[in-house]
Amino acid sequence: MSRLTIALSKGRILKDTLPLLREAGIELLEDPEKSRKLIFPTTHPEVQIVIIRATDVPTYVENGAADLGVAGKDVLMEHGAAGVYEPLDLDIAKCRLMVAGPIHAPRVDGRLRVATKFVNLTRQFYAAKGEQVEVIKLYGSMELAPLMGLADRIVDVVDTGKTLKENGLEPMELIAHVSSRLIVNKASFKRKADLVQPLIQQLSDAVSRKR
Amino acid sequence: MSRLTIALSKGRILKDTLPLLREAGIELLEDPEKSRKLIFPTTHPEVQIVIIRATDVPTYVENGAADLGVAGKDVLMEHGAAGVYEPLDLDIAKCRLMVAGPIHAPRVDGRLRVATKFVNLTRQFYAAKGEQVEVIKLYGSMELAPLMGLADRIVDVVDTGKTLKENGLEPMELIAHVSSRLIVNKASFKRKADLVQPLIQQLSDAVSRKR
Ligand SMILES: O=P(O)(O)OC[C@H]1O[C@H](OP(=O)(O)OP(=O)(O)O)[C@H](O)[C@@H]1O
Ligand SMILES: O=P(O)(O)OC[C@H]1O[C@H](OP(=O)(O)OP(=O)(O)O)[C@H](O)[C@@H]1O
Repeated sequence: MSRLTIALSKGRILKDTLPLLREAGIELLEDPEKSRKLIFPTTHPEVQIVIIRATDVPTYVENGAADLGVAGKDVLMEHGAAGVYEPLDLDIAKCRLMVAGPIHAPRVDGRLRVATKFVNLTRQFYAAKGEQVEVIKLYGSMELAPLMGLADRIVDVVDTGKTLKENGLEPMELIAHVSSRLIVNKASFKRKADLVQPLIQQLSDAVSRKR
Repeated sequence: MSRLTIALSKGRILKDTLPLLREAGIELLEDPEKSRKLIFPTTHPEVQIVIIRATDVPTYVENGAADLGVAGKDVLMEHGAAGVYEPLDLDIAKCRLMVAGPIHAPRVDGRLRVATKFVNLTRQFYAAKGEQVEVIKLYGSMELAPLMGLADRIVDVVDTGKTLKENGLEPMELIAHVSSRLIVNKASFKRKADLVQPLIQQLSDAVSRKR
């Protein structure tokens, strides 16, 4: 039985985390992008990897269903990650969390309508500026909202800026630089220190070598 | 310019709604499942279709970014669809919203932990039974939660029951029968009655013919 469970999500996080884990002696035997399975053994007899939604990673780690996880700073800020340790910036899956709007958008009179999946984060950002806005929760395709007249602005992560441009939008304000972080369940950090501590060290070394 | 926007989501709703729309003289010129586009013209000069996440459909229709939409009763119950009219049960994408748990699960002493993406609905269901439970919000792969020790039960939609079975789970309590509904923006219902009313009638006829 595996003693350590690591929670990852498909896409860029998985792609960029696997090489780091490999340097820590942990390799997958199967490609999760090509499998319907959700739990994967590794070459390390005491470590298994579980593949879940990016937004579910903090929940799994906080509740101890996973001992460790990798999550974007955007997801951690939105979730409110007070329940987990965040010992390491993995320096991967980098992007920017931004306010965007229609190209050359005029000033909006009255309350700005902002569509986003990051509702907590967005409320905090505008509250800190002393601006009252209407936040509209969406689960996908934020870039469509201004086009359809649902919102004046969106808050989303921007990498190359291609998605914005294709939808007639432009970046307007930087909220935060985003990269993926290693998060650790607080109880596991102590109770499984024999496995967790060396792993953090090995990952930290792997990150340093890449810089 | 299209005067009427219909919001649909990929998967079963799209597959089952297109034949009904066809009978109302509305056909797509392109297969959305094979396209990255989100807005599609139709053979009806005044109607366009927008493809968004299932959970976003009530938000678009409520705010008038779409005049009509098709959404599962599960999504409508979770969203709280007081802001839209729901004139027609399309009798498609049928399934059941259920509580499920590990096969032959013993009674849980103390507070039941229930993982679901339907948090409002789940709270209401247990509150009505007078049971205090801990609801854990997940965004995907609910069926993994009991396996990983994250929750004792899940609340999810069940169709064939295959997903439950594959994960060592069984259905335990029926919360609601689910099918997809036509929803209509309240202002559009009046202001665009010339287009909306005949469309509802044609869809209603198409549904009756299928029964
Ligand atoms: O600036 P770009 O290079 O165009 O990248 C930005 C896109 O990436 C993110 O989506 P992602 O594909 O990560 O999936 P998501 O929609 O689930 O967030 C984001 O929501 C944008 O759609
Ligand atoms: O009883 P079954 O026939 O196995 O069907 C049930 C599955 O269908 C639903 O997921 P769906 O594929 O609709 O996508 P979702 O995970 O986005 O809800 C649900 O979440 C289950 O996973």
